[in-house]
Amino acid sequence: MDGDAKATGLELRSLIRKSGALELSLAKVAVPEPGPDQVVVQVQATPINPSDLGLLLGPADMSTATSSGSGAGIVVSAKVPAASLPFLAARLDQAMPVGNEGAGTVIAAGSAEAAQALRGKTVSMIGGAMYAQYRLIKASDCQELPAGTTPAEGASWFVNPLTALGMTETMRREGHKALVHTAAASNLGQMLNRICLEDGIGLVNIVRSAAQAKTLRDIGARHVCDSTSPSFVEDLTQALVDTGATIAFDAIGGGTLASQILTCMEMALNKSAAGYSRYGSSTHKQVYIYGSLNTAPTELVRAYGMAWSVGGWLLTPFLQKIGRAEQQRLRQRVVAGLKTTFASHYTRVVSLQEALQLDNIAAYAKRATGEKFLIDPSKA
Amino acid sequence: MDGDAKATGLELRSLIRKSGALELSLAKVAVPEPGPDQVVVQVQATPINPSDLGLLLGPADMSTATSSGSGAGIVVSAKVPAASLPFLAARLDQAMPVGNEGAGTVIAAGSAEAAQALRGKTVSMIGGAMYAQYRLIKASDCQELPAGTTPAEGASWFVNPLTALGMTETMRREGHKALVHTAAASNLGQMLNRICLEDGIGLVNIVRSAAQAKTLRDIGARHVCDSTSPSFVEDLTQALVDTGATIAFDAIGGGTLASQILTCMEMALNKSAAGYSRYGSSTHKQVYIYGSLNTAPTELVRAYGMAWSVGGWLLTPFLQKIGRAEQQRLRQRVVAGLKTTFASHYTRVVSLQEALQLDNIAAYAKRATGEKFLIDPSKA
Repeated sequence: MDGDAKATGLELRSLIRKSGALELSLAKVAVPEPGPDQVVVQVQATPINPSDLGLLLGPADMSTATSSGSGAGIVVSAKVPAASLPFLAARLDQAMPVGNEGAGTVIAAGSAEAAQALRGKTVSMIGGAMYAQYRLIKASDCQELPAGTTPAEGASWFVNPLTALGMTETMRREGHKALVHTAAASNLGQMLNRICLEDGIGLVNIVRSAAQAKTLRDIGARHVCDSTSPSFVEDLTQALVDTGATIAFDAIGGGTLASQILTCMEMALNKSAAGYSRYGSSTHKQVYIYGSLNTAPTELVRAYGMAWSVGGWLLTPFLQKIGRAEQQRLRQRVVAGLKTTFASHYTRVVSLQEALQLDNIAAYAKRATGEKFLIDPSKA
Repeated sequence: MDGDAKATGLELRSLIRKSGALELSLAKVAVPEPGPDQVVVQVQATPINPSDLGLLLGPADMSTATSSGSGAGIVVSAKVPAASLPFLAARLDQAMPVGNEGAGTVIAAGSAEAAQALRGKTVSMIGGAMYAQYRLIKASDCQELPAGTTPAEGASWFVNPLTALGMTETMRREGHKALVHTAAASNLGQMLNRICLEDGIGLVNIVRSAAQAKTLRDIGARHVCDSTSPSFVEDLTQALVDTGATIAFDAIGGGTLASQILTCMEMALNKSAAGYSRYGSSTHKQVYIYGSLNTAPTELVRAYGMAWSVGGWLLTPFLQKIGRAEQQRLRQRVVAGLKTTFASHYTRVVSLQEALQLDNIAAYAKRATGEKFLIDPSKA
């Protein structure tokens, strides 16, 4: 493709109009010439993570979705509730590119040595706009993959692996010795189990079915609590006693689960308390909500004293906090373990056009644990 | 009284039995001889703060309260819901003394110089068991009051003043420049207004009636938002834009107010945002729940990105965090301002026996803003 300045590629765009209409489409954009320190990557694998859906679908009601056009001309429309529009002011009427991370092959490189060194290499990327056939990116923002690692293996190299490592790092930095994870049978949850087994960290897995519990036990998880079991509260409290976990990472967000976890932590702490404190245990109990699989309100039944906190947790501020050197250490660990500890599994591989088919949207918009889409933009 | 080892005094006790029965009574206890570094204080003024009610009444259903006996033999009984008992394990079947703070006159002193120096002096105290006619306490734990300050003026010297100062200190230490306060017409809220006016700190007061709004405006409050007004959301958002407040202290706890505050903070931040962030504003938004005027669940409608936190806030851990020297600085400021900035107002002064009358319990158990009881244990 070098030298062919008129080549074009498809790029997925998400637009929310002031009127409240969401429109998803594929824009035809010119493949740019790389600057001296840049490369052009043909994207071959880019996952649809829950964290991409906020930008892709916004708060649109996907039960109203309709589709028109065909092939690369497909346009999906849906309605965004009027009450959500004030929160979207800064993105209204702008066609936003989507896709946090991906991997592919470097097909053009700038003149700088670092860029030239990547010619023909398979690289992983982070930085948005990955739902595209071609991505212009700085060479220094590419992560070269070890020989024999495919783009599909390197596509989910950043969001899930660094989120999982971010959880154990946050646990340590905030003075906790073990942790709780919800929706724990997910790709991310399985990864977290492998990390905790490797690092000797106590992990309490909360799942929502017996089948998910089995999935985790089959990969060696030691503490698995099924929230649909009648003995859930007792099981969770006992697992918290056994591990000493006082921090939880919750992907669900809505409903009473976050509060139940705090209640069980308090009961676990009280089992070993020396005397009565009118304000409950003085040990700080933390739940970080990092996802919103249940978009209903979070309901906190405050029966756990005053030493508690529930808050949002997001990868980017965490990475900013730990600094560049520590980030590099974590990235190296991920790249070394892409086929083992940090392996991801996909249930469907789709093209850009297929990613905009209503049946596929309905499937990934459900955010169902165990269902995971990979887009291959090089697929016709 | 010196030398009279057989003197006795009344002391209020709160007992929750394993059976789930709450019993409030007055124990007759011997007035102890002070050790070398101790003094005996005749307690003449001790407030009933919301923070005392947790120990005094526990989670008992006061609609079931009954009373028997008379005079110093009065006993109040009420039922504690069975579901609450597991959280109370460490206090069950123990008669707990009550009352965080108070003031009175030193009537006996140990041999040490510091104790002797307090003979006959009016002092303020913190440390529990203040709902009593006499309190044995270390001389170093007494705060001598300036000449001309009465026990009633010195009774509420600790909990409310240091909580109010703790709010502005926490605001500064956590990097915020202005703050929000709810149930803001309370004694504590008025105190906080005077502190913020003195210190030039932006304060957004949230109240629950037009009358409370007037109370605050009359003492010079600049930003007052009435949550019962139809324009509450707009008023609050504008006050947040005007002040830049990104931290709130909430005395109410239950319901949707904490979440509404976060939503309005996010809207205020978005008004000045440079570009769209899919995760909402990256400015951290904090609500600390320090009371529970509404004991219903806290409902968080998570429409404010990921940079938010809701948690418990309690005076004691805050004081531990800032250390002894800083505590002393804050205490000195309070003592110097007991008749001005840190003045408290009471609607009723009652004896220990009167504090156990059902009509009085019903009044203070309501935790109504503007209603405040002072116990004078020296009153017959």
